[in-house]
Amino acid sequence: MKINICQFNYKTCDFDSNSEKIKNILQQSNTDTLNIFGELSLSGSPLYNTNLYKDLYQSTSKRGDELCRSGKSFIVGTPARGDENECYNSLVFVDKGEVKALATKRNLSRFDDNFVNGNGIETLMYEGSKIAFGFYEDLDNFFRRKIKVDLLILCSNVLFDKDDKDSIIADLSLYARNMKAKIIFVNRVGAEGCFIFNGSSFAMNERGEICKKLSMFEEETSFFETEKLKPETNKPLAYEEKIYKACVLGLRDYFAKNHIKKAIIGLSGGIDSAVVVVLGVAALGKENVMGVLMPSEYSTEHSISDAEKSAKNLGINYVTIPIKDIFSASLKTMQPIFEGTEPNTAEENLQARARCMIVMAIGNKNGAAMLNTSNKSESSVGYGTLYGDDSGAISAIGDLYKTDVYRLARWINRNEEIIPENSIKKAPSAELKYDQKDSDTLPEYDILDKVLTDYVDNHLSEQELIKKGYDEVLVKRVKHLFKINEWKRHQEAPALRLSKTCFTTDFKYPIS
Amino acid sequence: MKINICQFNYKTCDFDSNSEKIKNILQQSNTDTLNIFGELSLSGSPLYNTNLYKDLYQSTSKRGDELCRSGKSFIVGTPARGDENECYNSLVFVDKGEVKALATKRNLSRFDDNFVNGNGIETLMYEGSKIAFGFYEDLDNFFRRKIKVDLLILCSNVLFDKDDKDSIIADLSLYARNMKAKIIFVNRVGAEGCFIFNGSSFAMNERGEICKKLSMFEEETSFFETEKLKPETNKPLAYEEKIYKACVLGLRDYFAKNHIKKAIIGLSGGIDSAVVVVLGVAALGKENVMGVLMPSEYSTEHSISDAEKSAKNLGINYVTIPIKDIFSASLKTMQPIFEGTEPNTAEENLQARARCMIVMAIGNKNGAAMLNTSNKSESSVGYGTLYGDDSGAISAIGDLYKTDVYRLARWINRNEEIIPENSIKKAPSAELKYDQKDSDTLPEYDILDKVLTDYVDNHLSEQELIKKGYDEVLVKRVKHLFKINEWKRHQEAPALRLSKTCFTTDFKYPIS
Repeated sequence: MKINICQFNYKTCDFDSNSEKIKNILQQSNTDTLNIFGELSLSGSPLYNTNLYKDLYQSTSKRGDELCRSGKSFIVGTPARGDENECYNSLVFVDKGEVKALATKRNLSRFDDNFVNGNGIETLMYEGSKIAFGFYEDLDNFFRRKIKVDLLILCSNVLFDKDDKDSIIADLSLYARNMKAKIIFVNRVGAEGCFIFNGSSFAMNERGEICKKLSMFEEETSFFETEKLKPETNKPLAYEEKIYKACVLGLRDYFAKNHIKKAIIGLSGGIDSAVVVVLGVAALGKENVMGVLMPSEYSTEHSISDAEKSAKNLGINYVTIPIKDIFSASLKTMQPIFEGTEPNTAEENLQARARCMIVMAIGNKNGAAMLNTSNKSESSVGYGTLYGDDSGAISAIGDLYKTDVYRLARWINRNEEIIPENSIKKAPSAELKYDQKDSDTLPEYDILDKVLTDYVDNHLSEQELIKKGYDEVLVKRVKHLFKINEWKRHQEAPALRLSKTCFTTDFKYPIS
Repeated sequence: MKINICQFNYKTCDFDSNSEKIKNILQQSNTDTLNIFGELSLSGSPLYNTNLYKDLYQSTSKRGDELCRSGKSFIVGTPARGDENECYNSLVFVDKGEVKALATKRNLSRFDDNFVNGNGIETLMYEGSKIAFGFYEDLDNFFRRKIKVDLLILCSNVLFDKDDKDSIIADLSLYARNMKAKIIFVNRVGAEGCFIFNGSSFAMNERGEICKKLSMFEEETSFFETEKLKPETNKPLAYEEKIYKACVLGLRDYFAKNHIKKAIIGLSGGIDSAVVVVLGVAALGKENVMGVLMPSEYSTEHSISDAEKSAKNLGINYVTIPIKDIFSASLKTMQPIFEGTEPNTAEENLQARARCMIVMAIGNKNGAAMLNTSNKSESSVGYGTLYGDDSGAISAIGDLYKTDVYRLARWINRNEEIIPENSIKKAPSAELKYDQKDSDTLPEYDILDKVLTDYVDNHLSEQELIKKGYDEVLVKRVKHLFKINEWKRHQEAPALRLSKTCFTTDFKYPIS
């Protein structure tokens, strides 16, 4: 059987461009080839509330009919309405232009809002073979029915997870051996909002061995004959490279799909902005990224020189706009309120907000969007200024703890100094008062990040954390800070999701 | 059978205060009375990701055991773990201190993240009667089993919806008649984050007539004997009064549950801030609300006098802090960038951001949280400044279209002028440039709000809207503005939910 896996980057509700991609493939395809596009390939995904609107179904079914007129064979994903107007997440199997079967998702997942539970995996005869096709989420239900098939075709839009170690391959390998069937798995690629899909579609034989593996983070098609599949070995990407490529893809698609060309970023000389600007340049090109240096009286000399070096290494345009005048004016303005009070975060936040004001003003003047530079350690404990450095259209490293930011920086510098070495080496500081260090207020990042990983990502309880050997006072403090800062996290720039627990558009935690 | 409905305001993960409330009732109760607390009464709700942590189950089960030691009879809601550590949203039926039955929610709902599907409604004999108890969401499954019972006890935490016309009463009235059973429905009261639960628990007889109705928005207990239930009529609250009380409860709980005492609000003289400050004072007391007037060169005289009047009518403290110095300093600072460009939103946004800076600085100095004053019309089309007037800890009227804000304002003024009449009468303006009116940029609110209601809330498609008689150009423009502003909406202050479609912490829409 001739198969063509089409691992594409679709766009939510951009029916024309999605169907154009599919149509181009079908035009070139032979009639004896089965072209597999992924889950919701025709409509894009996540659909969220857009699937409450009638025109979504009109648009996709009109384009689905057009695709059938090609006379070719394919599997395409689309939302579909049932007899009572209920909506299913569906895969349509078309054999030489004729709709042969419809698989509707039974076990709904993260992005399936407003869909109803369907029937699961379907079987049919195609080119003399018995095929099962449907959603990966429904495989276990199908397996329990003990139906013998030659080939299983599974589609699912699976989110990138930096910590995942090929869990789907391991899982499907077991099923392939148990069911004595070949399996084809098709994932989409590309980002939508904060969500990154990494592709990595594959085909495996009955022994659960990988025979074809499509690339991570890139559009690709792969043609093969199922009878001729042979085991292949693939070199996995390094942890840092996966993160780097995911962030670059996430930023590129965020800008492209929102029709924004240019990015603007405040460069502090610190490691966070130094890493984000590298990612921004890789995503958008150096001509589309502008750096802003905004020194204050509390800025150290190295913070200015490091920021300049960071911009120069990348060859981007940058401007230096001191915050002195705005900061003085705001202190003068606030004098009736501040007079006679002890300096506190109010004065510090004024500086961060002045910087946000400047970056946004340049952005508003030039149609550029602000890149946020917060990291996950900061967001977890609320170390940052709302409407100040917590701002931005999109946060590239918001799902990376500070120690991972360092790791990524060292990887970026593996061949040459792109990020100023001093930004990596020096002690982190917000520079909102004299001689400030992050460690004045926060535990050292190597300890903090370990506690956070176990608390936020691994969901260990207080007792479990203490039992594991973390200091009790520290654990209680981290837990408390995490809890009281959800209201703030909610308003921070949405972060590209790189892990299972990311403070982004769909993160849920009690706000009080 | 003696019943005591306990309609309480619980707090998420505040196990001590929740169990204390329950314990107090049990101490006073006779052993022959069944006390009904609501869904997740012991743990509070929404639990969101907190139910991934072991200690949640340890805390609630420990307190559940303590409650049993009272020897009294009650139904309490709690998360519970199954044999394989899977988690259920459960109701426990305790008869004179002994656990008699456990109903686990089968049809999971909005706040049931990380719970697994349970068994639904359970039956048992209690005081010689056959009783069914469980979650409202599971009633239809139970009904289909055709089990005859004398009394149905249903618990569910149901969100306030300003447009709801007693739909649960209408629904349960049908079931009561069909099943020939009395029904008791227990809802919680109070707000958690942006979510408002309005109580309105009730008991109805076999003919589906309301015999006991607890109040809306207030904690209350109601004791009665099921044999003596008699139909009662209740006067429903007016639309505006419901909204007013919901917002006041929402603000009060947001502040109390986040341990914040004081609020601060920018008063522009416009209707939005004039309404929000009234709600803030009703929620927190006039001594805890501070107004800030921040005139600029574009402020009209009436905007200052209206804002002053608004503060004076309520008897709150207010300060006047002109933005002139910060605005001039920021224009001077931005000169290298702005020079030779046409004035655009960049200059306008600087003013809104200067105001945000001032309000936040006062807030940071005094431990006060900023009240946001955006409305749903503005958020829908992106009319507002991110990190400017879109800011705030909580948005009181973010789920009200401008026309509803006017309606609420007139209701507030029904007996006396609390909101300056001029704030209600004058044409809305952001006053960010000379002679600016909202209608320069936006359609008139009475038309815009109708289109938005049909598009955003009623999910009519473009064709349906045009068929309904709306201007095609307007429809396309509104749809476009709605679509391109999700990235902005996501970072706005979270809004108190007053309807089914509210741009708040759990709103989902594609960001690109």
